[in-house]
Amino acid sequence: METLTRGLLCHHARIHVATTHPTEFIDLTARLEQLVAEAGLTFGIVNVQTLHTTTAVVVNEHEPLLLADFTTLLEASAPDDGRYRHDDTNVRIVNVTEEERPNGHAHCRALLLPSSACLNVTSARLLLGRWQRVFFVELDGPREREISVLVFGEAGR
Amino acid sequence: METLTRGLLCHHARIHVATTHPTEFIDLTARLEQLVAEAGLTFGIVNVQTLHTTTAVVVNEHEPLLLADFTTLLEASAPDDGRYRHDDTNVRIVNVTEEERPNGHAHCRALLLPSSACLNVTSARLLLGRWQRVFFVELDGPREREISVLVFGEAGR
Amino acid sequence: METLTRGLLCHHARIHVATTHPTEFIDLTARLEQLVAEAGLTFGIVNVQTLHTTTAVVVNEHEPLLLADFTTLLEASAPDDGRYRHDDTNVRIVNVTEEERPNGHAHCRALLLPSSACLNVTSARLLLGRWQRVFFVELDGPREREISVLVFGEAGR
Repeated sequence: METLTRGLLCHHARIHVATTHPTEFIDLTARLEQLVAEAGLTFGIVNVQTLHTTTAVVVNEHEPLLLADFTTLLEASAPDDGRYRHDDTNVRIVNVTEEERPNGHAHCRALLLPSSACLNVTSARLLLGRWQRVFFVELDGPREREISVLVFGEAGR
Repeated sequence: METLTRGLLCHHARIHVATTHPTEFIDLTARLEQLVAEAGLTFGIVNVQTLHTTTAVVVNEHEPLLLADFTTLLEASAPDDGRYRHDDTNVRIVNVTEEERPNGHAHCRALLLPSSACLNVTSARLLLGRWQRVFFVELDGPREREISVLVFGEAGR
Repeated sequence: METLTRGLLCHHARIHVATTHPTEFIDLTARLEQLVAEAGLTFGIVNVQTLHTTTAVVVNEHEPLLLADFTTLLEASAPDDGRYRHDDTNVRIVNVTEEERPNGHAHCRALLLPSSACLNVTSARLLLGRWQRVFFVELDGPREREISVLVFGEAGR
């Protein structure tokens, strides 16, 4: 008699990070690999979703000088000293909070980056190329941030 | 005797929208939440995919002045009065239709934005952060548009 | 007696491409449609993930002049004659390899594009709009490249 070990697995976790700079790249790769191992996923996906609107999730190389280049690129794409209607407290009436601070530039930079990364898992391993690492990108730090991770697919086989 | 209520759920729906402006952000969040509830999904993903090449799907804050900032940013990234070979009717021979109109700028803006959003569902709720809303982005309106939504994961538990 | 034919399907494949230009758009659509058919998926997703950090996966129209417009846009977003700290061999010490070549511009362009595309499958067909095609984007060619494809969902129904 065989035991059916192949089944649907759906596991959710949250990652909390405290950022320390206005723009910052935080490497989540090791934590994601650990979540896949703990969940026992063999084939499927890991969907990494930020829960904020001035942040992003990207996949690229973890080389410090390159991350500095990325920061320069993002600063040029939407300068923090530009004019943003979102920051005009004379006319804005929607979603205004006590802790409001000018961050139109951060929203604009976030628009140009993905808010999630959907990654494949095969043979119980998060599949990444030689230089690929998964980054949470802070664009309006420092702040406390939260990332949702869904590990979803087949367990056993 | 127990009844096994945990099972694979895979439900597909289409959302139709009629846009009214060249660039427009249409908030799909309430419709997506309704689709998750109707399908009875408890854990899994919702994959929201545009079916057009001059549109996008993004996640950001629903604040009208911010959406105006986004429009300004997109206009600057690929100006509609720029020169696009795609719009050069003297040389172009591929995919030319009766209703052709110059929209190279809209394709270029679409290239810089995601064409889909993969969102996590936990405890029967579409998981979004406090300020996150899901937008269909029209970049070449007004037009009739269609969005594909896959609700996929576990039902019951 | 009925046989239960509806079940979880999770199939992984790799696509290999050899690019021939610095920037190049390679249409993967036919190969992806074939993978869906071969796997026998009826409802679910196809997640197409590049395994490199100077490449991307995008969905747009396959019109050669438009692809030339995209190349122009990417070149402007991060010029290949710009200054990138990633390429400064006097100061860089991380991830330096024998075959290193200046490619900071290619990483920056990749940052602005998605590294994967999650596409819906319904009624045993990869769901794409009339003009949508799925492209692997080379940003630092020519090179040998590899793309991971996960076909994931329900088989039978």
